[in-house]
Amino acid sequence: MKALVVGGAGFIGSYLCEELISRFWTVTAVDDLSLGKLTHFKTIEGHKKFNFLQLDVRKDDWFKSLRDNEYEVIFDLAANSDISLGLKEPRADLAQTFTTTLNCLEAAKVLKIPRFVFASSSAVYGDNPPFPTPENCSNMHPVSIYGAGKLASEALISAYVNCYGIHAKIFRFGNVVGARLTHGVIFDFVKRLKNNPEVLDVLGNGTQTKTYIDVMDCISGMLWKFDDPIDANKKLEILNLSSPGSTSVKKIADWCNEICTGSKVKINYQNSSIGWIGDVPRTALDISQISATGWQAKLESDSAVKKSIKDHYDWSK
Amino acid sequence: MKALVVGGAGFIGSYLCEELISRFWTVTAVDDLSLGKLTHFKTIEGHKKFNFLQLDVRKDDWFKSLRDNEYEVIFDLAANSDISLGLKEPRADLAQTFTTTLNCLEAAKVLKIPRFVFASSSAVYGDNPPFPTPENCSNMHPVSIYGAGKLASEALISAYVNCYGIHAKIFRFGNVVGARLTHGVIFDFVKRLKNNPEVLDVLGNGTQTKTYIDVMDCISGMLWKFDDPIDANKKLEILNLSSPGSTSVKKIADWCNEICTGSKVKINYQNSSIGWIGDVPRTALDISQISATGWQAKLESDSAVKKSIKDHYDWSK
Repeated sequence: MKALVVGGAGFIGSYLCEELISRFWTVTAVDDLSLGKLTHFKTIEGHKKFNFLQLDVRKDDWFKSLRDNEYEVIFDLAANSDISLGLKEPRADLAQTFTTTLNCLEAAKVLKIPRFVFASSSAVYGDNPPFPTPENCSNMHPVSIYGAGKLASEALISAYVNCYGIHAKIFRFGNVVGARLTHGVIFDFVKRLKNNPEVLDVLGNGTQTKTYIDVMDCISGMLWKFDDPIDANKKLEILNLSSPGSTSVKKIADWCNEICTGSKVKINYQNSSIGWIGDVPRTALDISQISATGWQAKLESDSAVKKSIKDHYDWSK
Repeated sequence: MKALVVGGAGFIGSYLCEELISRFWTVTAVDDLSLGKLTHFKTIEGHKKFNFLQLDVRKDDWFKSLRDNEYEVIFDLAANSDISLGLKEPRADLAQTFTTTLNCLEAAKVLKIPRFVFASSSAVYGDNPPFPTPENCSNMHPVSIYGAGKLASEALISAYVNCYGIHAKIFRFGNVVGARLTHGVIFDFVKRLKNNPEVLDVLGNGTQTKTYIDVMDCISGMLWKFDDPIDANKKLEILNLSSPGSTSVKKIADWCNEICTGSKVKINYQNSSIGWIGDVPRTALDISQISATGWQAKLESDSAVKKSIKDHYDWSK
């Protein structure tokens, strides 16, 4: 298989490239290196089936150097993954999260790439869905610009699937964690504990509870479903993808403290039930649809978080 | 009240401006005149409470000449209302339908306009919802770029409501009809019957059946709900807005033929159940939510269509 991985130098993207190479795929990674890093390719750089192109997918003509009928699938992982940042610069956030989707869809249409895999998010559900939240949840009202950009992207994918005959799979991820994190609560806590060994100030009261998934489980779930035979009657498929269980911010703070400082640091909480505007106090995804296909995550939410804290701490040394 | 009506020279927008002026509002209409026309303002031009600004709302800084704290509400009616056109130029379509929403929301945020009214569409539901379709329909998968642009806009409005404290009402219209139509099946049939008095070729087999609403009913419904007291706990409200009943393309073709030619023209149908890619064979909106508030349309779908054919025929002479 030949894949184009957009956002390929990012956190999830770089692990995906490694995994595809290990499965003997031919991979072209594309990234503007605004969040992604070339050091993420340490294990695959120079591999004869791997190449990297630094391109800005926010630009309409980003794919002009690519050839028609060359790729069998585009993995669209480009986004501003820092949800709290979106609030300050909604226009820039949407350019990174929505415009890149539009431009990936245009690439699929123009270059005749028949399959499209999209990294969506539990953020599309907003802050008051039923828990655990099923894919066919009604009243989806995102509360962050990031969540809106993802839901807007999903709407566009749906139209492109109908209008231009692309097959698409949309995965709504829980919080994906692993060594190469570039944002999020674990990234933030580890960084702050390194910079300030006296105190850890937590945004919110620590009760926010979310579902986490190890990045390798996330990739294994995506590729598991990708291997399904193509069904002409099911051109668009949307699936929640996470681990069983969920983990509170308080637990994460304690574990970060334990792993990074030997529990020497004082942890301060605020009163608010959310960490920032656009945050949601709880995510819990109904993963029965993907589970019914026989796939399951190797690590539950708590284990994924603990592993990620340790791996990220070591990796960021 | 002081209102900013974006897309104010368009079909629905110009009637809305007239109605607001008749209710003693102060109105600034904004339009780039790509689809809208200054002739639509015949009855209100020169009115001391009305002014018009030709601005391109696709531009980030379109509102730079407007003052803070001046307007109490923004009506966002800017869009490429020609659904079939979106297929040819998705990027241009999204600029007219989605980027304008983003830019209206930015205007609301920056200029401190506390209320936002958005013209959405039954196109957000895609082609396979339950009928009649309720607002909390799950699995909303638009099949046209237009529908995707509207659903994407709704997602963004939801995030802005949460992040920036704007109050928003989103109305999902049925097919809105009236004298000043600029697109759609009635516009198309009347135009073609005028140009060719021999034959009327209909796109599709004529069985497409949709719900139509007279433009004055559409405006009455919007303003009825707008008059609700502001509820701090219900900052985002989404409502279907249409007339009872629905009307087939075949009926519309027959009535157009009758009104425009005295039924002298031969009507040809095709085999397809849809008129073009992105069309949906059926729309039927569940209007029980708005009906429960005591509002109802004066004209049912069939009557709205017949009136519109006659009015548009006279108006376009």
